[in-house]
Amino acid sequence: MRIGICGLGTVGSGAFNLLRDNGAEITRRIGRDISIAQVGCRRGHPDCDLSSADVTRDIFEVAENPDVDIVLELIGGTDDAKRLVLQAIAAGKHVVTANKALIAEHGDEIFAAAAKSGVQVRYEAAIAGGIPIVKAVREGLAANRIGWLAGIINGTSNYILTEMSKPGSNAAFAAVLKDAQDLGYAEADPTFDVEGIDAAHKLTILSSVAFGVPLRFDAIYTEGISEITTQDIEYARELGYAIRHLGITSSDGDAVELRVHPCLVAMDHMLAQVNGVMNAVMVSGDAAGPTLYYGAGAGSGPTASAVIADVIDIVRSKGVDTLANLGFTALDDRRVVDITEITTSAYLRLMVADEPGVMARISTILSQHKISIEALIQKNAQGDDAHVVIITNDVLEKDLNAAMEELASLKETKDEIARIRVAAF
Amino acid sequence: MRIGICGLGTVGSGAFNLLRDNGAEITRRIGRDISIAQVGCRRGHPDCDLSSADVTRDIFEVAENPDVDIVLELIGGTDDAKRLVLQAIAAGKHVVTANKALIAEHGDEIFAAAAKSGVQVRYEAAIAGGIPIVKAVREGLAANRIGWLAGIINGTSNYILTEMSKPGSNAAFAAVLKDAQDLGYAEADPTFDVEGIDAAHKLTILSSVAFGVPLRFDAIYTEGISEITTQDIEYARELGYAIRHLGITSSDGDAVELRVHPCLVAMDHMLAQVNGVMNAVMVSGDAAGPTLYYGAGAGSGPTASAVIADVIDIVRSKGVDTLANLGFTALDDRRVVDITEITTSAYLRLMVADEPGVMARISTILSQHKISIEALIQKNAQGDDAHVVIITNDVLEKDLNAAMEELASLKETKDEIARIRVAAF
Repeated sequence: MRIGICGLGTVGSGAFNLLRDNGAEITRRIGRDISIAQVGCRRGHPDCDLSSADVTRDIFEVAENPDVDIVLELIGGTDDAKRLVLQAIAAGKHVVTANKALIAEHGDEIFAAAAKSGVQVRYEAAIAGGIPIVKAVREGLAANRIGWLAGIINGTSNYILTEMSKPGSNAAFAAVLKDAQDLGYAEADPTFDVEGIDAAHKLTILSSVAFGVPLRFDAIYTEGISEITTQDIEYARELGYAIRHLGITSSDGDAVELRVHPCLVAMDHMLAQVNGVMNAVMVSGDAAGPTLYYGAGAGSGPTASAVIADVIDIVRSKGVDTLANLGFTALDDRRVVDITEITTSAYLRLMVADEPGVMARISTILSQHKISIEALIQKNAQGDDAHVVIITNDVLEKDLNAAMEELASLKETKDEIARIRVAAF
Repeated sequence: MRIGICGLGTVGSGAFNLLRDNGAEITRRIGRDISIAQVGCRRGHPDCDLSSADVTRDIFEVAENPDVDIVLELIGGTDDAKRLVLQAIAAGKHVVTANKALIAEHGDEIFAAAAKSGVQVRYEAAIAGGIPIVKAVREGLAANRIGWLAGIINGTSNYILTEMSKPGSNAAFAAVLKDAQDLGYAEADPTFDVEGIDAAHKLTILSSVAFGVPLRFDAIYTEGISEITTQDIEYARELGYAIRHLGITSSDGDAVELRVHPCLVAMDHMLAQVNGVMNAVMVSGDAAGPTLYYGAGAGSGPTASAVIADVIDIVRSKGVDTLANLGFTALDDRRVVDITEITTSAYLRLMVADEPGVMARISTILSQHKISIEALIQKNAQGDDAHVVIITNDVLEKDLNAAMEELASLKETKDEIARIRVAAF
């Protein structure tokens, strides 16, 4: 099989070099050669020797090249990438992409075009780097009804939370973000990572792969980590929890929950053990029970590993495989539950004037909304103010919102009330 | 596609019921029905309604049944199972099995027969129950040269070690084993599990899938957990380690290490977080880096999940897929390293008479064998005796054996010297 690589950045150069380094071993596996027919890139890459490659500056030439069987879309972005992918599909070529935004936002259109052309579109590298999570859900757990899936799918956010969690670090979000930028773990504009958009793209795709529903990036609830404080991390620890940024999707077969936000996770849970830039996804199937997949979520090598695994799958399937797209032959368009309709336990942190009767007033408001208290910490904060930290029982989010509004309007309440949902698994 | 189920025990009944419960969802995934053409079993199963099934008491009838496309070998054992599988292959049927002993001991012969008949033999369920670990290594990481793989692949042993590790438990191996038997986590004859044979079967297969080498169950080094004491667990904890029973295989492209034994694992390592009957396998690829796969390693549902995933893979591949067997089209027969030739750090526990000069004598012997001490604990044991616990640097096992022999012959040394290897990752 002959591939065309479009884009020679971190991922493209990794894929190019992986085929150079491991080509012989891959051929031993699959009994066939994978050769690079053409490379489309605006400029070369210092790690890649292109001297014997057919290089074009026009990526769209690769999509039309009759010598190319599989197009690797590794240019990123959505406009040119979408045009490239659709053009390649129309020309009868299989497509492998690492582009989460492209698939999350335009996947339905791309998959429809691929089905019409009888080609495969694969995107293992779009989610959790080197972890074969799409394959695990789509194939490994194919006999299961998936109940829920929860994952640490943004390494930058996990790195920042891990650093903020180091005992005695007391490093604020902004300071740790700055360090992460200096270390190359965060982009100059970190919005996509720290505000949860990157995780939302990935979760949108995983949800569709798990439940066979259309891609609903428009309906996902997204919250980042920029409001998390070291104080919250400390209180959570006292209560037996770590704070992790999770993507969570679940379905009862009817509606789908689809949400990305910080979460309290019990300290002895496997997801609480995932530190630094690592990723991990836990998937609960009705037969297999919970299984977890852990590894590097980004970087040249891990992402290239996933890209070339997709290429190998296409080669091995000899072009007649039906595993493309979401792994379902019939999609089921389920309602996405609004965030106000979800039920979770929640961590609340209030800053209140430490006056007689304040706890009674807080408790009364909660009980009027039928919210009970699972755990409570009260601590002096600054001056005459106190922190009241509460873990609620399972509560409908809109009921909690109403209670929080009343709590905020108490004359003793200073500052905004922090709310972090608690993982139910 | 029409399947024939042979054996209706824990796994067979799970597979039967999984198809009944999730058949419609599976059809939505793959666009085709999977029907049960025949069930071969000595007796029924209380959880299975066989009233509308074609049941035979003769499993070999299933292997010859022209209505059966895929034979599920779920009878266990090796003699009848081997005959059944070879007969099914000869009759042109694909085979799915959960039988680790069969594949580890007779896989090469079975795979050769399958290649000749142009059918697939799949065995995801043979290793780590519901975790799609064979798929992850063979397909998900197919672009990588695998460097090493290490896993907790026997739930019984991990359950016993976890129970023995509970703070203050002080429960001896034999007592915990008895509890495990009462709870159904261990067999009446626990030898296969606690002496590492079950893990050795699984590791033999994983090693071949990772490195594309023939199955070498004859050459694997196997050590169980029956000699582990709570005292060792306690000392290991003081030194920052948990004790886990691991299967470890590695290759430098030349020779292969293949060994199953208890191991000290750093307390903050993901494998040290795997408790109870759960399984986990960490795989290190040159591109993807280390990835880990965690889940239930046994039980009706998890094992059936893997069996039916294999069936789905065969259906999806429409019979032309080349992924059968070990995932390599050409095997490479590498030398298996003898256990005396491996290099690891090791934990040693000596019971010695607490007399002047004894530490000097121990240190001298170690240094004469060029073994240095990374960590040392000395504690009163009983009466005038002391425990000396040592973590060595990386040392060739045969050098350590020689040193241990000299240490054992010291007049101050009482009792046998305990040795537990330390994980290098």
